[in-house]
Amino acid sequence: MNGMKKYVFGVDVGGTAIKLGFFTVEGELLEKWEIPTRTENNSENVLPDIAEAIENKLKEKAIEKEEVSGVGFGVPGPVTKEGIIQMNANLGWRNKHVSKELGELTGLPCKGGNDVKTAGLGEMWKGGAAEYDNAVFITLGTGVAAAIIVEGKVILGAMGAAGEIGHIKVNMEETNACGCGGVGCAEQYASGPGLVRMAKKKLEESDKASMLRYDEITAKTVFDAYKVGDELATEVVEEFGHYLGYSLAATAAVVDPEAFIIGGGVSKAGDELVKVVQKYYKQYVWPGCRNKEFVLAKLGNDAGIYGAASYVL
Amino acid sequence: MNGMKKYVFGVDVGGTAIKLGFFTVEGELLEKWEIPTRTENNSENVLPDIAEAIENKLKEKAIEKEEVSGVGFGVPGPVTKEGIIQMNANLGWRNKHVSKELGELTGLPCKGGNDVKTAGLGEMWKGGAAEYDNAVFITLGTGVAAAIIVEGKVILGAMGAAGEIGHIKVNMEETNACGCGGVGCAEQYASGPGLVRMAKKKLEESDKASMLRYDEITAKTVFDAYKVGDELATEVVEEFGHYLGYSLAATAAVVDPEAFIIGGGVSKAGDELVKVVQKYYKQYVWPGCRNKEFVLAKLGNDAGIYGAASYVL
Repeated sequence: MNGMKKYVFGVDVGGTAIKLGFFTVEGELLEKWEIPTRTENNSENVLPDIAEAIENKLKEKAIEKEEVSGVGFGVPGPVTKEGIIQMNANLGWRNKHVSKELGELTGLPCKGGNDVKTAGLGEMWKGGAAEYDNAVFITLGTGVAAAIIVEGKVILGAMGAAGEIGHIKVNMEETNACGCGGVGCAEQYASGPGLVRMAKKKLEESDKASMLRYDEITAKTVFDAYKVGDELATEVVEEFGHYLGYSLAATAAVVDPEAFIIGGGVSKAGDELVKVVQKYYKQYVWPGCRNKEFVLAKLGNDAGIYGAASYVL
Repeated sequence: MNGMKKYVFGVDVGGTAIKLGFFTVEGELLEKWEIPTRTENNSENVLPDIAEAIENKLKEKAIEKEEVSGVGFGVPGPVTKEGIIQMNANLGWRNKHVSKELGELTGLPCKGGNDVKTAGLGEMWKGGAAEYDNAVFITLGTGVAAAIIVEGKVILGAMGAAGEIGHIKVNMEETNACGCGGVGCAEQYASGPGLVRMAKKKLEESDKASMLRYDEITAKTVFDAYKVGDELATEVVEEFGHYLGYSLAATAAVVDPEAFIIGGGVSKAGDELVKVVQKYYKQYVWPGCRNKEFVLAKLGNDAGIYGAASYVL
């Protein structure tokens, strides 16, 4: 890096949309926009589309490439330290050297990693994890995964699978399989679909009156019903807290973070969600790790572009 | 470091004895010896005793201090990144800046850390973990603890408590408390005292014939009986494997290591122990981490001095 570099791009590649952010090197988000993810033909257009979007933005702003530090990216699934995606089912990529290809297309330094880890970097740079050197950033969405931050860096693990805490086995009695092939994973309870599944099961098994009988069941409606004291929703949320709290307690024994930062769509339920997770965490964690901070993520959907940008700084 | 430095000391401070190792900077152990740990008056003599032992060794060998890289040390309990021990019950130390004090006493650079993490470093440098960048080194002894190795470094955690995987709660039905104050910790089953406790409990609760009824019960006699098919010992060892395997499965989901290296006194039971742990590990771990290496530690009681020496290299 040198003093000439003023700008940086952060790119968050999702299954349906690619989010792009144009930042100053200090981390001020100047502009953000989206382009569609064209997945046809094994997503062959995705990297050229990103390169074109970047070229256009630079032209529009009349900014020279010399002023740009580089392009950071986040993509779903495991990414090696060298920026290679071995296999990505959503995008149809295999052994794709994203940083090299995108570097050639843009003529800029490119670096990136897994999307959850990237979002964790974003929260660490400008969000809820900014004041911590050691933290666990959890996303609760379609799945449950974490970015494990150790001394200011997100760890990868041997196969890029560090932070897969949604696949800690938490229920020995479960009979339904998790998407991963395991049975009784935390993700089967602590994700959006997990909450919906638990709620539907309880509605079927009981005659209890519940607001959930008259509404579409989503993570949001379950938490909304919980917040107004709905008994059945409370059972669901307590079970959610129980399993997620247990997973975080096990995680604490392994990496001893300063804080847990909770993000992802499900975390929009807010402080009430944090409280129930923390209650069970304290019940299951060993005394040496009892007093950890629990905070909500701050950047929402922008965590990915922030984290991506931070790769090249 | 410069080319003049030929030697390094590694010091492993235990509750009853201090082990010292004199190494070449390449890691060849030239000599090892022990001195007693004088714990009276809050162990005020421990650091001066170590300094004197080092001075004497240098005199004996007619080696100048200029030829020595430094002194590395391992001590029980949490040690901060700066080498400060906040509280050590065995030694009676509080807020003791060991690296600074030992540095002043010896006139040599001193650096160190927690004993389990230090032993992990030793196995990483010259032992069972040498070929791995990401590994979990577990000691099974009076307690159960691990050194979590990430990209070639042992991680500390916020309070120096990373790797306390012996305190993952594994048994919700347990009524006896662990030494940590928790209930149902892995250490209550997977340590030496844990094995003895489980064996005694089973002997009391059953009338089954068992070799263990005619012998002193230790981790060794339990595994010896297991190896010849003793039914009651088998129940004990299966329970040991179950709880330890579960803890390692949870650990894998958090840090995704390449391998688990099993050391400590209890690991002398050898391959049979590794097999039973691995069996339950595979049962509980998520598919993405199923194929990890399980190996025995190689350095035995010398892991600590090797790891200590490696701090100053």
